[in-house]
Order: sequence, then structure tokens, then C-alpha cells
Amino acid sequence: MKKIAILGSTGSIGTQTLDVVRANDDLEIVGLSAGNNIDKLEEQIREFHPRLAAVWNEDAAGDLAVRVQDLDVKIVSSMDGLLELARMEEADILVTAIVGMIGIRPTMEAIRAGKDIALANKETLVTAGHLIMPLARKMNVQILPVDSEHSAIFQAIHGEKKEQIHKLLITASGGPFRGRKTAELRKVTLEDTLKHPNWVMGQKITVDSATLVNKGLEVMEARWLFDVDLDHIQVVVQPQSIIHSMVEFEDGAVIAQLGTPDMRLPIQYALCYPDRRYLAGDRLDFRTLKQITFEEPDMETFQGLPMAIEAAGKGGSMPTVFNAANELAVKKFLQRKIGFLDIYDIIGQSMERHTLVKEPDLDQILEIEKETYQWIESRW
Amino acid sequence: MKKIAILGSTGSIGTQTLDVVRANDDLEIVGLSAGNNIDKLEEQIREFHPRLAAVWNEDAAGDLAVRVQDLDVKIVSSMDGLLELARMEEADILVTAIVGMIGIRPTMEAIRAGKDIALANKETLVTAGHLIMPLARKMNVQILPVDSEHSAIFQAIHGEKKEQIHKLLITASGGPFRGRKTAELRKVTLEDTLKHPNWVMGQKITVDSATLVNKGLEVMEARWLFDVDLDHIQVVVQPQSIIHSMVEFEDGAVIAQLGTPDMRLPIQYALCYPDRRYLAGDRLDFRTLKQITFEEPDMETFQGLPMAIEAAGKGGSMPTVFNAANELAVKKFLQRKIGFLDIYDIIGQSMERHTLVKEPDLDQILEIEKETYQWIESRW
Repeated sequence: MKKIAILGSTGSIGTQTLDVVRANDDLEIVGLSAGNNIDKLEEQIREFHPRLAAVWNEDAAGDLAVRVQDLDVKIVSSMDGLLELARMEEADILVTAIVGMIGIRPTMEAIRAGKDIALANKETLVTAGHLIMPLARKMNVQILPVDSEHSAIFQAIHGEKKEQIHKLLITASGGPFRGRKTAELRKVTLEDTLKHPNWVMGQKITVDSATLVNKGLEVMEARWLFDVDLDHIQVVVQPQSIIHSMVEFEDGAVIAQLGTPDMRLPIQYALCYPDRRYLAGDRLDFRTLKQITFEEPDMETFQGLPMAIEAAGKGGSMPTVFNAANELAVKKFLQRKIGFLDIYDIIGQSMERHTLVKEPDLDQILEIEKETYQWIESRW
Repeated sequence: MKKIAILGSTGSIGTQTLDVVRANDDLEIVGLSAGNNIDKLEEQIREFHPRLAAVWNEDAAGDLAVRVQDLDVKIVSSMDGLLELARMEEADILVTAIVGMIGIRPTMEAIRAGKDIALANKETLVTAGHLIMPLARKMNVQILPVDSEHSAIFQAIHGEKKEQIHKLLITASGGPFRGRKTAELRKVTLEDTLKHPNWVMGQKITVDSATLVNKGLEVMEARWLFDVDLDHIQVVVQPQSIIHSMVEFEDGAVIAQLGTPDMRLPIQYALCYPDRRYLAGDRLDFRTLKQITFEEPDMETFQGLPMAIEAAGKGGSMPTVFNAANELAVKKFLQRKIGFLDIYDIIGQSMERHTLVKEPDLDQILEIEKETYQWIESRW
């Protein structure tokens, strides 16, 4: 029986993780958590009977505790609550399905407690990869990627030797605005942006897909996860999202993972690794597929990707600034306070005014995040 | 140092195997063999200094022995010579790069002597898979595929569990006549047939690619090599020959191996397995690749594939008849004695008149081959 705690169980990845648990008898939920959606969390608690549930919002946590007093579940709240969930003794693995830099501390707490990590929180490695990866190695803990691209790479290199990897080929759909130029992006609406061509995902990641910031974050993440230099990571636009990513080896062989757009597959792969289990759902049908096409990413229009590569190249605290600036910019875009292209402006200007800290510790990372937010709030 | 004997060193796969040996310091040639091309074999002997060289043709063997009497190499001939090469004590691995059913006896001899097999001789598994695979298991010998499709599958399943394989997806270029109908095939010439769109190969296999017999033989081979039912093997036409084959697993994930059309890659993979080594040569460039397309094979026009599936389904001696009939038909086609479509007629009629032997032993297989030849010779 593998025992699972989920950081962010009411979001898109969290609920799909529960789908996977439902389908596998040897997976068991021991901990759940939510930001403030206690209606959904209560349902989940009644179905999965975790020993612990954490709610970020303290008032909501209080409400929930009253609602579930008939059950044997402990309700905790705020960052202390998330940390308690992260290190809970019963858990073998923590699924970090929470969005944002809020996920970093609990992830590190879980690693320190010897839990494997099913990593769906991008910000963890993007901003603190230089802290997380050595810690995971020291604690002999596995970081199992849940993102479809990183899972594809992880599947492709399974059984292969690290030193025989030549290049990672991360595929990108190109998002809903692929083919458009900057002038056309000036008028796009929030509704246009939220129409992803292939994947149904949370709102923040859907906006990040449209700006290519998401692909930039994935490049940064891949670098840490697979210990590959930035110039050995290539982004390939593959608009049908059939190839989830590829790896080129020393001998020139390219191993690719393909599939339908179903996040349950990488989630299940991470939870059951290295086993594969039957997964109900659509299969790729090459008789009807017709074609897979490839393009170069348009780095001039979709500045999210080159800006991310620049931030990753500078390293240190710059990825934190990139990520924090994007996080707040997307929030403002979702609130209709700024336009689509303002996201790039906010990221660009935030990076430009930042003075690099070379090896930031966790406190510095979180301080730089806050300071970046404050600077943006004072201007936009 | 890995010591290699090659059955058929002067052909296309044989010479490319020597290219791979040249590029890898820890590979050494201990045995070579040819049908009757002793000019080329002499060159190879002078470069690689094998201890043993086998020549099928006895007169040619005599000539060669005189030519290389300045060297410390033993020249042997005929089937006895091939068998001596197959079991030679110095060798760790036998590359079976010979074309035709002549490869079966030496392959079995090598397995009995505990040698790993780098298998490039299709006929071995097609006609005697039911004898070869149990023998290999008993002798704890590895059968390492060299064919690009089987190597792709072998690479895709490396590190995976056999019972989690759901389906093999063998890709096919469709050959030079893809898209044409039977009426158009009536007039095609030998020259048309020998123009393969993507691969440079020997003549026999190039004709087999045009008839789709080659793909049929690969389906038969894959069944034995990977122990998968026929109805879990699907042929997908992928005209650019970029995807060399794929495997669908239980969870719906598809792992594919892609690359440029370069046989040195699967040869090197087989010789160095599970290591990957740097291999000089072109790389796939997804910036210029544009697209990969898929089609269903046209089984009505290209009867080589459905006939092979029928023969495999009947099992026993039927694959031997299919293969022998094709072997002789292609020979006649290469000699301009018959037309392209006659190849299908010869195979079809040979299969129709054959009385199935359910579990033929090697003598029966070779007897049925001979008898099939005689029957065809008496009619065409």
C-alpha cells in the first residue's frame, strides 16, 4: 500500500490524482489540503478518510473542522498546517499539486522527512532548484515529475544512463495564439487566452501556455530535474500535443513519449513508478491521427520563453523574479486589470531592475518574491 | 573487449557492422564470412585480422586461402564452415547479417554454444521462431535485434516490464509504390522497385519493402522476439521513416524511437547494449522536419502484409512456405523472369497448396523450403 498526501487536492492536478487513487487499490490517501475550497475538501475527506487535512485559510479551516467533527480527521491551517501535512509520518509520497511559490517550504519539509515527491508545483524547482536537488540527493528521495512534458522525458530516460543523454526536446503546443504576431496580441481577451487548443488545465497555467512562460518554466525545471545544461534543452512546437516530449541520446536515437492529453497518465506514472498500470481512457489511434507537425517557437512574439531562458542563464535569484513577476502579472490579467502584453512588460521590467543574488537561500528567495510583488504593485 | 563474429560480412549490414567496429575500440572482430565475394572479404581480413573466415562457395574458399596465406587466418567453407564460425570459442556475439534461410543452422549453432545473437537475418525467427526462442531462453542467450523496427521496439521497452506492453506499432515507409493500386503495379519495372524512398539497403530487402512482404516478415519476427500476440501488433505507414517503431503500454503511453535512416545505430545498439555510444552522423532536426504523417497500410494492393499475417496466424510450417516462396519469387523478379505482381501469385499459390505441419523441426523446415522451391520452379 502506497500512502499519499496531496498538497492542493481540490485543484485540477489534485482531483485527477484522486481519480488515479480511486482506480488503484494499492494507493491510499492519508492527507489532503486546499486553499479555501472547503466544500470540495469536505467531500474528498468523506470519500478518502485522510488522517490529516490542511486548509491555507484559517477561518475556512475552522469552518471545516466543525463540519467534519463526526470524522476521525485532524484539521490544520496556514503554513504550519501545510508543513505538518508535508512531514506526516504515515505518508510515503507527497503530491505537490499546489500552484505558486507557496509550495516550496512544504516540499522541502517533505524531502527532509524522507518523502518522495510527485512534483506538480513548477515554482519549487524554478526558484529553488539549487536547494531542492542537493537536498533530495542527500535524503535519497525521488523527485518524480507529474508535468506531462517532464514525465515524458522521465519515461524516455527510464533505463538509460544519464551521461548518455545528449539533448532534451521539450514540446510545446504553441498555445491558443500560435502564429499571431505582437500587434495582434494587443487586442486578445481573457476569454481568448483561456481557450487552450489541447489541454484542459487550471487558469493560471492556461495563461502561462499562451504567453509561453509555461514552456520557459518547464525549461528551467527540466534543467534541475535532469541535470542538463540549458543549451542542451530545445523547445519544439508540436501543435497537436501528441508528442509530450523527447530525448536525444549520444548515438542520435530519439526516444519520445506520445499519448492523448490526459494528466492522469503522468500522475499515475509518478505514483506507481516504475510500474505502468492499466488506465481507462482514450488511446492514440494512428489510423485517424494523420499527422504530427513541428515548428520553431516564435521567440520574438512570445517573449515568455526567451525571458525564461535569460533568467535561467543568469541563475541565482533571477528565476525567482521571473516567476514572481509572472505570477502577479497573470493574477492581474485574470482580474482584467492589465492586457496580455503587459505580462511581458511586467516580467521584463522586474528582471531589469533586479540586482542578482547568486546563491539565494530560501529566506532570500521568499524575500525577493515579496519585494518583486511590492515593486510591481507600486507601478501597475 | 567484446569479440564479434559476422555471418555475412560483405553485405550491407555486414559492412556497416564493420563501420561500427572501426569506431569502437572495445569491439574486436574474430570471425568473418561471405558467400563468394572474396575480394571484399580479403580486404576485410587484412584490416580486421580475424582468426577465422568462412566462405560459402568452396572454390572461392580455396582461392581465398591462397591469397591470404601470409596471414594467420583459417579459411573454412560451406555449411560446415559457417557452423564452425558460429560456434568459434573466441566470439561473444554472432551478427547474423546473412540473407535467407541459410542463416538458421548457424544461428542455432551459435545459441547452443552460448553466443549472444545480433539478429539481422529475418528468416531465422520467421521460420524457426518456435525453435530459436525456447533454445535461447534455455541457453540464457540474448537475441538482440538489428533491424531498425525491432531495434526501435527493443529500445522503447528497455527498462519496462514485458507484461505491461499492450501493443507493438511497427512503422512502414509504404515503399516506393505507396498510393498506387494493383493495376498500376502491373507495369512497374525492377528499376522502379529498387528505388526505396528512405533507406539504402540490399536488393532483396528493397524488393520486399515494395511488396510489403518485408513488413509482414517483421510482424512475424516481432511476435517471436517480443512474445506478443499477432492481434497486438499493428502496422502503421509513416512515409518519412522518422519513427522507426513504437510501443503502446497498458496505461496508454506510447514510447517511440525516432532517428535518421542509419542502420549503424541499431547495429551499435545491439553490439553495445544496453550502452549508447556517440555515433558520428546526421541527427534529426525538428526545426527543419516539418511533419510526420501516418496512413493505414493498403492491404488490398500490397498483399505481402496480409499474406504474412495469414501465414503467421496459421503458424507451424506456413511461415516457411511464405518466406521460401517469396525468396525464390524475388530472385526471379531480380532476374527479370517474372513481374512484380507475380511475386504475390507465387506466394499465394505456394501457401494454398501446402499441407500444414504444426510443429516442424529444423529438418522439416528445410525440407519444406526445398520442396516449396521445387514446386515453384516446376511452374514459373
